[in-house]
Amino acid sequence: MASGAPTTGLQLRSLIKDSGELELSLQRVEIAAPGPDEVVVRIEATPINPSDLGLLLGPADVGAARLSGSGASAVLTAPVAPAGLRAMAARVGQSMPVGNEGAGVVVAAGSSPAAQALMGKTVAILGGAMYAEFRTMRAADCLVLPSGVAPAQGASCFVNPLTSLGMIATMRAEGHTALVHTAAASNLGQMLQKACLADGIGLVNIVRSAAQAKILTDIGARHVCDSSAPDFMDRLIEAVSATDATIAFDAIGGGRLAGQILTAMEAAQSRKGGAFSRYGSTTHKQVYIYGGLDTSPTELTRGYGMAWGLGGWLLTPFLQKIGPAGAQELRERVAREITTTFASHYTRTISLTEVLQPEIIAVYNRRATGEKFLIDPSRDGKA
Amino acid sequence: MASGAPTTGLQLRSLIKDSGELELSLQRVEIAAPGPDEVVVRIEATPINPSDLGLLLGPADVGAARLSGSGASAVLTAPVAPAGLRAMAARVGQSMPVGNEGAGVVVAAGSSPAAQALMGKTVAILGGAMYAEFRTMRAADCLVLPSGVAPAQGASCFVNPLTSLGMIATMRAEGHTALVHTAAASNLGQMLQKACLADGIGLVNIVRSAAQAKILTDIGARHVCDSSAPDFMDRLIEAVSATDATIAFDAIGGGRLAGQILTAMEAAQSRKGGAFSRYGSTTHKQVYIYGGLDTSPTELTRGYGMAWGLGGWLLTPFLQKIGPAGAQELRERVAREITTTFASHYTRTISLTEVLQPEIIAVYNRRATGEKFLIDPSRDGKA
Repeated sequence: MASGAPTTGLQLRSLIKDSGELELSLQRVEIAAPGPDEVVVRIEATPINPSDLGLLLGPADVGAARLSGSGASAVLTAPVAPAGLRAMAARVGQSMPVGNEGAGVVVAAGSSPAAQALMGKTVAILGGAMYAEFRTMRAADCLVLPSGVAPAQGASCFVNPLTSLGMIATMRAEGHTALVHTAAASNLGQMLQKACLADGIGLVNIVRSAAQAKILTDIGARHVCDSSAPDFMDRLIEAVSATDATIAFDAIGGGRLAGQILTAMEAAQSRKGGAFSRYGSTTHKQVYIYGGLDTSPTELTRGYGMAWGLGGWLLTPFLQKIGPAGAQELRERVAREITTTFASHYTRTISLTEVLQPEIIAVYNRRATGEKFLIDPSRDGKA
Repeated sequence: MASGAPTTGLQLRSLIKDSGELELSLQRVEIAAPGPDEVVVRIEATPINPSDLGLLLGPADVGAARLSGSGASAVLTAPVAPAGLRAMAARVGQSMPVGNEGAGVVVAAGSSPAAQALMGKTVAILGGAMYAEFRTMRAADCLVLPSGVAPAQGASCFVNPLTSLGMIATMRAEGHTALVHTAAASNLGQMLQKACLADGIGLVNIVRSAAQAKILTDIGARHVCDSSAPDFMDRLIEAVSATDATIAFDAIGGGRLAGQILTAMEAAQSRKGGAFSRYGSTTHKQVYIYGGLDTSPTELTRGYGMAWGLGGWLLTPFLQKIGPAGAQELRERVAREITTTFASHYTRTISLTEVLQPEIIAVYNRRATGEKFLIDPSRDGKA
């Protein structure tokens, strides 16, 4: 192990107390010397994904948050209502590190050749506890970024890129040839559109405003349907017919949208003609909900025959299903195309201590499409 | 072909006219001499299943039905609202025969040995157009009933028995070990309970009254949950925990029940403990909707993690999936157990002309659990 390796570092923690309070703080934790097959990564870029916010803020009322102390000693507290506390029972009292993915530079390495080979390299990593100055990882789990790619460019190598590729792979595995995506102007949605263009796959993008539609048409999208437009359903049926999409990935979850997509798919299948069947078309129509931007109930009118399915979809079980070799293939494509197909755009970069600022929380917790924060924990050491 | 074979017979027809009227009538149709591999069956018993009512009555307002003429010349007309007419566009103007399944006696047979061997036998058949005096079938598609079994006992050999066995087979094929069933006091539900007892499979029955619960406990059901009881959710969670059921078949469709079942399954899985996961339990929880007794929208609160699915389920695609040999195995079990496990109970037997009587329609169209009609078309000839 190199001398000068870190022995302690700041790590962001989220704690829900049984008294009904969320507490965010920075803990100084020990950084043990890496094992033979391990490396220590100095995190320089880690995104705030929608999937991080659930663990970071839980069901707390962040509008009523208070900050005490300052710098690395700052503590944010926010109330959690009794119903939220019950739902979070399994994590109450546990101080939890946060942050699914990130990128940085290897500053200490174990004795194995594989670990030593990473010394000084810029790598992307996945696995939680990334909102920290340092993260110890197995060398085998580090994705080496191409030369010249900065940590900020490689910070989002996993969640969004692998999710977009996972959607395409799921589409193929389940026998579909084109797909529908909602909240499609997101970073993830743009990646999916670019990957579909590269692979020649039909994609119907559903967005909620004309401005979001423009983001997608600017990168070459052919089918963009604005759910705020009065002719939304007509246009959706047209686009689904044109692509023959029979599977959708929905980030919204609540309300009528998932059912509207199934309705449009059934209308598109019916247009093909064929004999009357009182059970609707025999083509299977599938919507996977992978997010919950709208937390209200999902409402299904079931006016689309019997050959349909709705369900949850998550990246991790998908990666388990395709196995280590399949997942590695996807990761290597991401690394190769991290500055093109899988480039992310951030609206602001903040330090670890800024993650605890109520006025900053108010912005990143809006989950507004096109607005995305990056954390650079190495700024805290420089402060 | 035997002399004295029928040359014509009455057949019930359902027609939706583009003027916005449903018309039920009896047509006298020609009965051609059977081909070498065919037989002619004199139908003596054919049930009115919920799955027949959609084709028979469509979206007509049968409360406003009028009958003209009498006997075999009677015609029933009932108005169809414009929205219903649009939904039925694919069948408008087509005079459609009705009736999924039935049983009767072979009265004419083609020249092949297989067809000749059926002459005089009592057989059960599936394939539509059973609300008729005679039905020509391929000999290979006839299920010969055991000696001494009357047509009335074998009339429901397919839809309910194969659906109950199809649910068990689907449960096994998708890796589950116990199941939940709704509207469970139905003829189908009783068959499913008897088959589960015979096969040692845990079954949670959901019913809507204490009287329905008694029907099931009387045949040995261990887990019956009454959705009209104030402690329904607590009891459902208990029963799902006790059986470890992770798949359900739901005949209701609308409202909150499907989501309540998923909620109960998630609660049962959470009780097993394990580490906190913000995405809920990793055990897949599935609800298949196979009916629509409640036509209102399905409402899902999605408070059960990400490992869940909801979808349509139909017998025919299931039988296609398991192939001819698999389906034949199920059919033979049904024939063996038609007077025990798969015995049906009818509250009333009517003639073909009675199917057109408004006051009788009012009763069989209620789709009340435990109330079931059988048609005996051979009565019309005797009238």
